[in-house]
Amino acid sequence: MFQSPHSGPVQGRSIHELTTSYRAGELTPTDLVETVLGKISERGDDGTWISVVDRFHLILRAKELEQHPNPASLPLYGVPFGVKDSIDVAGLPTTVACPEYAYQAAATAPVVSRLLDAGAILVGKTNLDQFATGLNGTRTPYTVPRSVFGNDLISGGSSSGSALAVATGEVPFTVATDTAGSGRVPPALNGIPGFKPSRGLISTVGLVPACRSLDCISLIASSVSDLSAVFDLVAAVDDRDPHSRMRQRDICDANNFRVGLPDVAELEFFGDGPMREAHLAARTWIERGFDRTAQIPLGPFLDAGALLYSGPWVAERLTEFGAFLADRPDAVLPVIRSILEGGSRYTATDVFAAEHRLGELRTRVARLWRDMDVLILPAVGTTFTVEQAVADPVGTNTALGHYTHFGNLLDLCAAVVPAGLTSDGRPAALMVLGPALADDRVLAMAARLAGEETSADHTSRREVADSISAGSTTTLVVVGHHLSDQPRSNDLTSRGGLLVSRTFTAPNYRLLRVGDVSAVPALVRADSGGAPIEVETWTLPSAGLVEVLSAAAESVCLGRVLLADGRSAIGFVADASVLAEPTALDITHFGGWRAYLAAQSESHAADSHGADSHGADSHAADFQPAHLP
Amino acid sequence: MFQSPHSGPVQGRSIHELTTSYRAGELTPTDLVETVLGKISERGDDGTWISVVDRFHLILRAKELEQHPNPASLPLYGVPFGVKDSIDVAGLPTTVACPEYAYQAAATAPVVSRLLDAGAILVGKTNLDQFATGLNGTRTPYTVPRSVFGNDLISGGSSSGSALAVATGEVPFTVATDTAGSGRVPPALNGIPGFKPSRGLISTVGLVPACRSLDCISLIASSVSDLSAVFDLVAAVDDRDPHSRMRQRDICDANNFRVGLPDVAELEFFGDGPMREAHLAARTWIERGFDRTAQIPLGPFLDAGALLYSGPWVAERLTEFGAFLADRPDAVLPVIRSILEGGSRYTATDVFAAEHRLGELRTRVARLWRDMDVLILPAVGTTFTVEQAVADPVGTNTALGHYTHFGNLLDLCAAVVPAGLTSDGRPAALMVLGPALADDRVLAMAARLAGEETSADHTSRREVADSISAGSTTTLVVVGHHLSDQPRSNDLTSRGGLLVSRTFTAPNYRLLRVGDVSAVPALVRADSGGAPIEVETWTLPSAGLVEVLSAAAESVCLGRVLLADGRSAIGFVADASVLAEPTALDITHFGGWRAYLAAQSESHAADSHGADSHGADSHAADFQPAHLP
Repeated sequence: MFQSPHSGPVQGRSIHELTTSYRAGELTPTDLVETVLGKISERGDDGTWISVVDRFHLILRAKELEQHPNPASLPLYGVPFGVKDSIDVAGLPTTVACPEYAYQAAATAPVVSRLLDAGAILVGKTNLDQFATGLNGTRTPYTVPRSVFGNDLISGGSSSGSALAVATGEVPFTVATDTAGSGRVPPALNGIPGFKPSRGLISTVGLVPACRSLDCISLIASSVSDLSAVFDLVAAVDDRDPHSRMRQRDICDANNFRVGLPDVAELEFFGDGPMREAHLAARTWIERGFDRTAQIPLGPFLDAGALLYSGPWVAERLTEFGAFLADRPDAVLPVIRSILEGGSRYTATDVFAAEHRLGELRTRVARLWRDMDVLILPAVGTTFTVEQAVADPVGTNTALGHYTHFGNLLDLCAAVVPAGLTSDGRPAALMVLGPALADDRVLAMAARLAGEETSADHTSRREVADSISAGSTTTLVVVGHHLSDQPRSNDLTSRGGLLVSRTFTAPNYRLLRVGDVSAVPALVRADSGGAPIEVETWTLPSAGLVEVLSAAAESVCLGRVLLADGRSAIGFVADASVLAEPTALDITHFGGWRAYLAAQSESHAADSHGADSHGADSHAADFQPAHLP
Repeated sequence: MFQSPHSGPVQGRSIHELTTSYRAGELTPTDLVETVLGKISERGDDGTWISVVDRFHLILRAKELEQHPNPASLPLYGVPFGVKDSIDVAGLPTTVACPEYAYQAAATAPVVSRLLDAGAILVGKTNLDQFATGLNGTRTPYTVPRSVFGNDLISGGSSSGSALAVATGEVPFTVATDTAGSGRVPPALNGIPGFKPSRGLISTVGLVPACRSLDCISLIASSVSDLSAVFDLVAAVDDRDPHSRMRQRDICDANNFRVGLPDVAELEFFGDGPMREAHLAARTWIERGFDRTAQIPLGPFLDAGALLYSGPWVAERLTEFGAFLADRPDAVLPVIRSILEGGSRYTATDVFAAEHRLGELRTRVARLWRDMDVLILPAVGTTFTVEQAVADPVGTNTALGHYTHFGNLLDLCAAVVPAGLTSDGRPAALMVLGPALADDRVLAMAARLAGEETSADHTSRREVADSISAGSTTTLVVVGHHLSDQPRSNDLTSRGGLLVSRTFTAPNYRLLRVGDVSAVPALVRADSGGAPIEVETWTLPSAGLVEVLSAAAESVCLGRVLLADGRSAIGFVADASVLAEPTALDITHFGGWRAYLAAQSESHAADSHGADSHGADSHAADFQPAHLP
């Protein structure tokens, strides 16, 4: 893991901690609601929230959850969260940080509905740079939020409130957005993780667009595993979203990744020496911690980023706000107004020419992914105070987006994770980038950098469910060397295998031990003399099955195995040749391979006292296979 | 198949026929070149070709092929073809039908290189509407081509020459392009098939763009199976093309497709009664020939089509030709000039607004694909004479694109096939449409409508090679009911299984027959008394393996089978229980399940004369499995 000198300012509890407390009966949703309201009121108006759901409705929601017949079926039971105020929640106003633009939402965005359906408690709508236009957090008519790191540092934007609500520990996660870095700069400046998935994996229906062609729903949480857990719940194809596409699941081992790093000379810290030092310390650790790193030129990435604000995409914002701006120019903050007005100077040909230039850059970047699995960069090159951001709104904003602007244009996915502090106490952060649909890869690397164990239990269950519903996996019954603590278990896990259950066969099986030095178990159907044999069921991508079989012992075949509960599944059984094996011993009475091995090692221990190590075995000669009368 | 009253005007030989003649030694590439040059010279300047490779170089190419050490390795050995003159071939001029714009190409487009690498002979560059802007074929400073159906009918455009070169039988296929129908209207108007793949499946590197965001390389051939064969060779990811994406392979049975058809009232024939009648006859056949049809509203498709020419995409053409137009306005045909100049009136906001509107239409169309696998429409609603097209260049063009304009904007793939003649002798054509990446589905349906057997042998070999290189399949050895002429063979083919070879096991196997009424073979390793047993190797998507195993007889397992050539592969073997089966007979000496069955049916025939039907069998009791001393 990345050795952060500072664990970040997060005061709240993670989703996992909350869930554990609920299960243990140490907490109720009502208690939780009171705690969250207490924290919010304690901080006063710090610019985090534009609106908070009133106590009455929060308690009502808590009680509703408490009366749920099956809380265990709700993966986010009682977990509080906030939503950026550019995303609709029915019955609440959507302001986009422009009170004159605000409207009462009639429907709830699907990303929010999915969270509510999972048992989460919506606490309120969070502050943002007006029209989600900005990366600094100061462009709001509401209270200007500050970074939790103090010293008048900006919160970052546009998802300023979404980052603060998590960083102050009020809620464990929030829903934000990212069009050019809005979902990454604020968590980076508040010392917490954030994740911008590949475009189209989370539906943007119900979002007030900034640039429709680039907008992504993003997530901010107090840990990468919480980001993953929430992402699992909200990533879904939605054919009302023209950019919707299917998530691509990957089983990733971040330790084996090829890590792309730019030449240090290509990195830009805007003269911020302490930030440079903090980043280089993190890089040193990465260079030592990974076997394979590749030096990647930053040119094509930065060229794409430059296109965003020097090019015609700002005109896309006019398709949303142009009419309002013409109608109510004074309702819009001057800085936002001047940015939006800049969009009207571009022609249609400018758009196509910029898209063609971007296309060329995409092809150059596509070739760079041949040499790396992930690219790691600073999330921000420097930080600013509110005063600095207000004094030079465009310059500071451009600097803040130096590493983020290109991500959306190049169709990348990205996560930011805290990476220690500068010597003067400001947050440093790393950004992990991957090509489109490499979301699992990016999350795995972010978890590795954050020093988090990935939430294996949670993830596995989700993956099992997902894989099974996708029809691409098979259940496999294993009896010997593939059991989860046995030497060939790795043949399954390395191919995406996941342990589902420990169980037994139906009683009409015998277990033989075949071979001497490298003994293997052999499962054989038998009408008499059988017993329930201990097995495990695994789920395995079907494509891996043949490789597992090829790697297994020669006498092993795949056939149907009848389980104790009456189901049958594909599993390892013995082929006909084992019956003739002179070394075959019937070990059915041990009830399983593990029990046999345990007895062996006990009897080996006893050996030194002169006992017969095979005393408990009977030779297979008296074995009668199934179907004999 | 669609019962076309007319098989089309094609005079030439298909790729398959040419290849067969070459293999039989009935033809040499030199003969072929002379024949092609003869045909071209016989027709004179009919507007098909802008440039033809000179005889010297064609003969040189023919001789080069004749000296090739392994002609069988070249799937297009000696097959002549033409290329639309907006696609670069090194050493030849690219004119885009504008002599003043023409330049000598320095490199060959990868789509052409792949064909040359496959042994094809490039004959020349074909005529087109200038700058590939038009659907009628009259917008050229060269000779205006006419449809092979005569009566002064337009050839269609912009790929006018590419369609004619095939329809007149000069070459069996040509490379064309399709930005709004340019690859579909000309084959439809000349009674031959054409195919516009999903965008990005064939590299557009080396193409002079019309609208980069919509351009596709397309193919025109004298049969759908030739289109498929050529597509197999040229579809390839190219990371120099920003729109490049990977082909998605499907195993399709067009008979099971859900066929989308619009309400007849939504169809537009521009007052062309005979065309309407010809189309309705084809529809009647489709409605009778397919079990499942669905009525699909055409509105969202046509709305998208209307966006193309009423919207800002014409400005995209200016990014390519704007500078030339400003510099040399007189070098551009007046109709093209006025179209291009129209592009400058659009703003950047117009582009984004049109893209957003298109996004909405895409989501509506995406939902329609839930109810159908393919959509079938007329390819064109009517035909025009050259005089009509010249008199009303914009009106006729809009009518010609009624059914094609939306295909590119909505990211669809499409094929056109001839569908008989109107009562007054003009060609009618059907268009099969599918969503992005449903190319195999569209080709399968087009082949079905054209009454063609799909080129199974060719396709299978390609699919085997592709699947194996993708690592997603497994080789499976089958010995009994899964053999290609046996009852369970369908378990393999229905899951994408493909027969690879007929071979034998190594000699240390025995074959048993187990069971009485529904006897199954059982393959068992045996150190003595074994023989080579007839087997087949199949390739099967790994994901299907478990289903095949689950559907197989209960005593059957998957294990490793050693083949006669020393390789081993996963295959069906017997589990240990069969040895105890009282019904088991050793039938090893037959050498295989088919030979056993043949002997059985002979002996059953003999039965009626009193012979012993099992006379040749020996009971398995004396069977000794492998590894016994």
